[in-house]
Amino acid sequence: MASSTQVEQNSALPASVVEKLKSALGAKHVLTERDELLVYESDALTLHKRIPSAVVIPGSGEEVAAAVRILAAEGIPFLPRGAGTGISGGALSTGGAVIIEMARLNRILKIDYENRLAVVEPGVINIHLSQATSVEGFHYAPDPSSQMACTIGGNVAENSGGPHCLKYGMTVNHILAVEVVLPSGELITLGGGGTDVPGYDLLGVFVGSEGTFGIVTKATLKLTRIAQGVKTLLAEFMTVTDASRTVSEIIAGGILAAALEMIDNATIRAIEDSVFAGGFPTDVAALLIIEVDGLSAGLEETAERAASICLSNNARAVRVAKDEEERMRLWGARKRAFGAMGRIKADLMVQDAVVPRSRLPEILDEIYQIAGRYNLNIANVFHAGDGNLHPNISFDGRDPDQVRRVEAASKEILQLCVNAGGSITGEHGVGLDKIEAMRLIFSENDLNRMLAVRDVFNPSGLCNPGKVIPTTKTCRYCGFGMEDFRHKRLTTHGMHRD
Amino acid sequence: MASSTQVEQNSALPASVVEKLKSALGAKHVLTERDELLVYESDALTLHKRIPSAVVIPGSGEEVAAAVRILAAEGIPFLPRGAGTGISGGALSTGGAVIIEMARLNRILKIDYENRLAVVEPGVINIHLSQATSVEGFHYAPDPSSQMACTIGGNVAENSGGPHCLKYGMTVNHILAVEVVLPSGELITLGGGGTDVPGYDLLGVFVGSEGTFGIVTKATLKLTRIAQGVKTLLAEFMTVTDASRTVSEIIAGGILAAALEMIDNATIRAIEDSVFAGGFPTDVAALLIIEVDGLSAGLEETAERAASICLSNNARAVRVAKDEEERMRLWGARKRAFGAMGRIKADLMVQDAVVPRSRLPEILDEIYQIAGRYNLNIANVFHAGDGNLHPNISFDGRDPDQVRRVEAASKEILQLCVNAGGSITGEHGVGLDKIEAMRLIFSENDLNRMLAVRDVFNPSGLCNPGKVIPTTKTCRYCGFGMEDFRHKRLTTHGMHRD
Repeated sequence: MASSTQVEQNSALPASVVEKLKSALGAKHVLTERDELLVYESDALTLHKRIPSAVVIPGSGEEVAAAVRILAAEGIPFLPRGAGTGISGGALSTGGAVIIEMARLNRILKIDYENRLAVVEPGVINIHLSQATSVEGFHYAPDPSSQMACTIGGNVAENSGGPHCLKYGMTVNHILAVEVVLPSGELITLGGGGTDVPGYDLLGVFVGSEGTFGIVTKATLKLTRIAQGVKTLLAEFMTVTDASRTVSEIIAGGILAAALEMIDNATIRAIEDSVFAGGFPTDVAALLIIEVDGLSAGLEETAERAASICLSNNARAVRVAKDEEERMRLWGARKRAFGAMGRIKADLMVQDAVVPRSRLPEILDEIYQIAGRYNLNIANVFHAGDGNLHPNISFDGRDPDQVRRVEAASKEILQLCVNAGGSITGEHGVGLDKIEAMRLIFSENDLNRMLAVRDVFNPSGLCNPGKVIPTTKTCRYCGFGMEDFRHKRLTTHGMHRD
Repeated sequence: MASSTQVEQNSALPASVVEKLKSALGAKHVLTERDELLVYESDALTLHKRIPSAVVIPGSGEEVAAAVRILAAEGIPFLPRGAGTGISGGALSTGGAVIIEMARLNRILKIDYENRLAVVEPGVINIHLSQATSVEGFHYAPDPSSQMACTIGGNVAENSGGPHCLKYGMTVNHILAVEVVLPSGELITLGGGGTDVPGYDLLGVFVGSEGTFGIVTKATLKLTRIAQGVKTLLAEFMTVTDASRTVSEIIAGGILAAALEMIDNATIRAIEDSVFAGGFPTDVAALLIIEVDGLSAGLEETAERAASICLSNNARAVRVAKDEEERMRLWGARKRAFGAMGRIKADLMVQDAVVPRSRLPEILDEIYQIAGRYNLNIANVFHAGDGNLHPNISFDGRDPDQVRRVEAASKEILQLCVNAGGSITGEHGVGLDKIEAMRLIFSENDLNRMLAVRDVFNPSGLCNPGKVIPTTKTCRYCGFGMEDFRHKRLTTHGMHRD
């Protein structure tokens, strides 16, 4: 985790470049005033703040390509940004990078029910596609907690998950093709309309590349039938260990839950203190939200089996949402948990790690112990079925001591998960925030192989520099890191060779 | 499709290299006699025959790495081979490549029910993993028709599908990690034990790379719960169009079938004339096998809905397999269709293409017309639910005129599918056979990007040369193609620069 609470003021863009951008996109779609740029200083992880040198707002894929070509010709770095709901500092400007804001590319271009696909622009908000197709009984399955705001382009960049990815898979399982502007300005298509595309799966490796391979300007997505029936259970536990065991037993019992979420006491209290109150009991150690869906016929029986597993693991009570309204209230409260926690203190660190499901109880114990040692409020709300943890730390970013403790505790939590055979991120990405943590799981050779794959798409290094892969070697001529875009620019221009 | 029915005799391996291999693997695990090598002249697509210069049979991942290092040091190409059930000429030796036969790496190393995974060696036969885990109620979901013989390593290389991939996904959706010997001899791990791994998804791009990135020596696979209940329907149709429409309507009707297979009259007759007879009626134009699985409770109702869709599309009869024995007989007959067709004439070309599901009826019509024009027997048996066609052409490879007609008809079928917005392969891979067809869907730039990604793993080009990506440019110094391993060897050794 890179320490960077301080605001970094980037150098201004040359006037000639600003003029070229304005003539390509229209003057009002090129922002360079400090007060306009401040809006873009961070994503939803406020620990890192960087002000971009400019923000451009193209209105079409061609305009994205035009902006990229103008910037690339000058060796100026850039990055795409959707709704800014990311929580790994992935959509931040580093080193004067220009932000390419995708908000105007927000059209649903095509819906094809027979072949079960939709073609959308990257600025389309995740839930809008489900809303547009629900009348015909379809939805777009990946449902991040931020789905009311986050965009499809950002989902592709982060390979976003969500509560229902336990059953339905991550974003990568729902993307058929993307149109991409490469950092060279070339417009390419990856993937196709079918179930499989010959040759190497460049679409697969593009999804989740966090904006470092190129900029999505169009995406073809799978549409999924809305399940005929759904049952949502809320189970109350007096210990976190009982709740964790229940998760393992439900899965071992062969119940393919559509979602299996755990909410701990600290999170419950934050939610119930907020405007998003879900009517959750505040005196329990943990709640499980268990959702099963599918054909109506078998659902009742499945829900009963899940409930009896809860009860045999000491659940104090299990209730079933009695109608769609109650179900939506439960999910609404769950999905706004991060927002609710944001009210406790000025800043929130939403951690994201993965552990083998079987080790959930002991790892959770240790996370609470780490919180105690650093005197921090840690609230856990997470996709328990996937072993995907989200310990959330509320803090005040203006207090350097708190920031130091948050960073140290986060680092310990990640190391703990890695030691347990897990990973440093489940679904939120590496971005700027976890770039150094990559070394906890990858060797120098592994990282260099990843950089080499990035070079296939982004050889100049101009697209979203300083993210995902830590820089290691330093060039003996220019002093920049070997994969730093400034070093690359110098070698590309023949100014020195390494 | 490359024309290469003639047997290509490769030059012998230098005696010093044979000695080194024998001392590393044991003399009996290094085959160099012509009669031993003849066994390896083709995979299940007998149209292409190439005799390797040698076959080595390592007994461990370390021995694979040792063999690769010996060969790489001499600039001798090599490729891995599983059971040889592939049907795109992917596991053939080109240009004197040594075959590394994985049959001895056939151990299931670990089964972990709690975290739902297994660790296996690449030579493990697909169905053996399901057999080993069925007692606990689990299986390995991807089920190619060749699952009685094909190996996990081959499945990873080809990203294999199968009838049940309609619901459960391809191999790539069931692989958590692989251990790989790179062409340099380096042993690396891609992926992890969890649902997501940070950084770029190198595992995802490795799966389906057809043995051109490196050699799998260990794989971590997901285990899937066997569904509580299953119903298998057999529906009889008097026209192929009625059967195709039924497929579209079943899917449009929201029935998530576990499998949805079509078998046409020519295939039925081949099966019923063989030892694998399934009791199929031979007077119908097409059969659909429709399987639904899941919780027992809702199944009856779903099966009835599927049956009524069949009947409303003019099905003559629909019957439900009355017990597991009848169900296994149906699937046994379906999965052995390729074997049954092999008895009609000496050789069989199993084609593999994808079209948007909505265009199945018209495309099938045109395929039968192509067959008529070239005076060929084309039998269709395929994964209709995926739009994944397998037109099969029986022919006699000793008759040059028949071979020419098979090649011309195959080319027309692929072009037809591409024109309909489909693709040149659904699940069988590109291999040697479809290397030229790659140009039907990819531009020069697309292909170069794929080559660049391959170079990250296989920069020497020594691992499975001449597969997947067509060579385009010729080196002006050595006259070899720019991605030919011989050209690469010369530049790597500094003998010339391009």
